[in-house]
Amino acid sequence: MANTLYLGIVGVGGVGTALLEQLGRLSNPPKLVLLSRSTKTLVAQTPSYSHSIPFEAWEIAAAAPSITTVDALAPEDTAAYLGSAPGRSILVDNTSDLTLAKAYPIFLKQGISVVTPNKKGFSADISLWNDIFASAADGNALVYHQATVGGSLPVLSTLRDLMATGDEIVKIEGVLSGTLSLLFDTFMPAIGKSDAKWSSLVAHALQIGFMEPDPRDDLNGMDFARKLTILARVAGLQVTGPESFPVTSLIPNELLSLPLSAEGIAQFMLELPNYDEDMEVAKLKAEEEGKVLRYIGSIDVSTGEIQVGMRHLDRDNPIANLKGSQIVSIYTKRYGANPLVLKGGGGGGEVTAMCVMSDLLKVMEGLA
Amino acid sequence: MANTLYLGIVGVGGVGTALLEQLGRLSNPPKLVLLSRSTKTLVAQTPSYSHSIPFEAWEIAAAAPSITTVDALAPEDTAAYLGSAPGRSILVDNTSDLTLAKAYPIFLKQGISVVTPNKKGFSADISLWNDIFASAADGNALVYHQATVGGSLPVLSTLRDLMATGDEIVKIEGVLSGTLSLLFDTFMPAIGKSDAKWSSLVAHALQIGFMEPDPRDDLNGMDFARKLTILARVAGLQVTGPESFPVTSLIPNELLSLPLSAEGIAQFMLELPNYDEDMEVAKLKAEEEGKVLRYIGSIDVSTGEIQVGMRHLDRDNPIANLKGSQIVSIYTKRYGANPLVLKGGGGGGEVTAMCVMSDLLKVMEGLA
Repeated sequence: MANTLYLGIVGVGGVGTALLEQLGRLSNPPKLVLLSRSTKTLVAQTPSYSHSIPFEAWEIAAAAPSITTVDALAPEDTAAYLGSAPGRSILVDNTSDLTLAKAYPIFLKQGISVVTPNKKGFSADISLWNDIFASAADGNALVYHQATVGGSLPVLSTLRDLMATGDEIVKIEGVLSGTLSLLFDTFMPAIGKSDAKWSSLVAHALQIGFMEPDPRDDLNGMDFARKLTILARVAGLQVTGPESFPVTSLIPNELLSLPLSAEGIAQFMLELPNYDEDMEVAKLKAEEEGKVLRYIGSIDVSTGEIQVGMRHLDRDNPIANLKGSQIVSIYTKRYGANPLVLKGGGGGGEVTAMCVMSDLLKVMEGLA
Repeated sequence: MANTLYLGIVGVGGVGTALLEQLGRLSNPPKLVLLSRSTKTLVAQTPSYSHSIPFEAWEIAAAAPSITTVDALAPEDTAAYLGSAPGRSILVDNTSDLTLAKAYPIFLKQGISVVTPNKKGFSADISLWNDIFASAADGNALVYHQATVGGSLPVLSTLRDLMATGDEIVKIEGVLSGTLSLLFDTFMPAIGKSDAKWSSLVAHALQIGFMEPDPRDDLNGMDFARKLTILARVAGLQVTGPESFPVTSLIPNELLSLPLSAEGIAQFMLELPNYDEDMEVAKLKAEEEGKVLRYIGSIDVSTGEIQVGMRHLDRDNPIANLKGSQIVSIYTKRYGANPLVLKGGGGGGEVTAMCVMSDLLKVMEGLA
């Protein structure tokens, strides 16, 4: 168990910084030999890789003995560098970069394990998904991406455990966007009433930093659809991609053509109140049934049917009263009518880093 | 990764039988070289251990080539046998036997990993707990006992993940008895009303096999307290044992002296209706507050305070509407006010076996 493991970390934003801090507290951490941010990369001296980069802020790390600062490396070069280390190595990708994700197979084939919260690769074309896992098998490397679905909830590991032990997944339902969860919960609370206009709730969420900088990135449902794609693939479905199933966008049709610029965002927020009536109508329809309106995703594993959109739920449905949490209900053959439910606060840098760290610890155990 | 792993299974009841079936479906199972039930043990021929016991019913397994049937082995002999296998070995204990559990340190010191749903050892004296984990470290062996808490919910692994990544556990609350969950949920539903008497609900649950053969084993709260002890210990508290904190027994004081015999059970069920009034009063008190009565356990990690008993909960508290599920809410520093919640159906042989199997797969990965 005393084999040295070599670690490369790409991305030093909120998640990367929190991860470095958590690594610094490990009693037996892997050896950090590559640390990369957008334009610069720190590397340890080859061919010995004998010095390691300290788990510190960039400037301190860069000044450590035998650590060199080079320009940003292409994914292939990062793979070649880690692949030449005198032991098993691990890539942690903290970016949301598709280019790097597309290169995972190159890493994996060389036996470099991959740990990442980056959804892009796993929700892109199914051929990349299949290539990733075939390459991992080829290279005898591990791939962990728990944080790509359900924030810090142990959704993927639980699902994989159920399947590895021969249970049959019947259906998966959930709310995989903390932002949309909070918006719908305040727009139409399960208990009590609210008169707040939809557009004013969106404006408020944007103001307090609870949405993506461009709110349309939350409202179009695509982030949710990407997570659902990953979940369905882990459940065994060969889903072509997040565009291959119906996703209800909460962006009014008339506003779809607004530019992606800051002006486009401002224009969108200015015009959104004109469409409040549509959301009021949707709310009223749910109310007439004595139910609440929620934005949820579902996967029917037997029919392969996947959808993301608004649905009417009973007020006592656990999904109806989330207050900004995410939730996933897994129905299986063994569990019957009483699904396995995982619920909890969403992401955030430190929590996501914890999830990455937990994956990393498993990979370290697996390679030890 | 091609090292052969040697497996010994003790206990071939509901869980053991389901586990054998699940093992039979693995593409790369460990080599079963010991299978033991109360009075008989099957072993593979030493010193080669080259034949394995098939994953089949006892009679078929016993008739396999080079498999010998011997009398029940003492734990020390089982450990000696597994310890002499020409590779790493694993003990799966499917019993609820304290004697075998007390011998875990003997196995672990010899490098034999332990996987078990048996609560007895982990909730007994704290010195055994400490001995188990110290022995595992000594012998470089693994101990997995996920199924001892929360049925098949990934409670312990999630808790350990949180702690391994440096989160601080603040508080844990939950319902760790599917039986008591169902009794209280039908006695005082979160939605709607019930006029059913407490004693008649107990009688019904007993009749449909949803309780232990002696219902007092559920009603005294000790099984719940044992699970809470394990949970608290994993959270880092050195809990002396399940008798070291307040546990409200649902057995009326006057009936405590009834014998443990079948006659005692019959007498207990006959007299229980005389105490329905007490439960009605408890129910009324909750109702006056607009709340519901539930039987829950809680661990305050900072003060070390642990308790199991009846509490008044808001009707919209997720714990209030379980319908026989178990639930655990984990409050941590990172999660803040929004706890991580795990909820799902209780145990049952096949589900418990799945949980054991999932642990076993992790041990196999760890030893490979």
